[in-house]
Amino acid sequence: MSNEIKTAPMHKLIKRAGAERVSEESANALGDALEEIGVRIAAEAIDYAHHAGRKTVKARDIEIAAKKVLDR
Amino acid sequence: MSNEIKTAPMHKLIKRAGAERVSEESANALGDALEEIGVRIAAEAIDYAHHAGRKTVKARDIEIAAKKVLDR
Repeated sequence: MSNEIKTAPMHKLIKRAGAERVSEESANALGDALEEIGVRIAAEAIDYAHHAGRKTVKARDIEIAAKKVLDR
Repeated sequence: MSNEIKTAPMHKLIKRAGAERVSEESANALGDALEEIGVRIAAEAIDYAHHAGRKTVKARDIEIAAKKVLDR
């Protein structure tokens, strides 16, 4: 995992969800999880783009892929 | 959506997944999707922390919550 996603915004997301206290390690763990999920969504989105005859990934590819990854 | 997650790292994740070209809007869309998923995971993690009698969210809460959100 190459840590594209920084810890500070993850800390904010966990607070936004209602946490009273957030450990540093939990913010790192959320970054790792979202990075893995993000690559998974992106891979699905690339399939959709190719299926539509495009080499460029567009927002609608990501939106459909995110829905699929979450719903299955 | 308050955009805690920046566009540049999302662009990198989509490239890492194998995309040839990535539109700006798709990187934004991935950020929005991951932010929504992140808050969902965090909310589950807070439930786990409370269930364990803690006010502090720990890494293991996030890890269990991420697995649950993805598997259902």
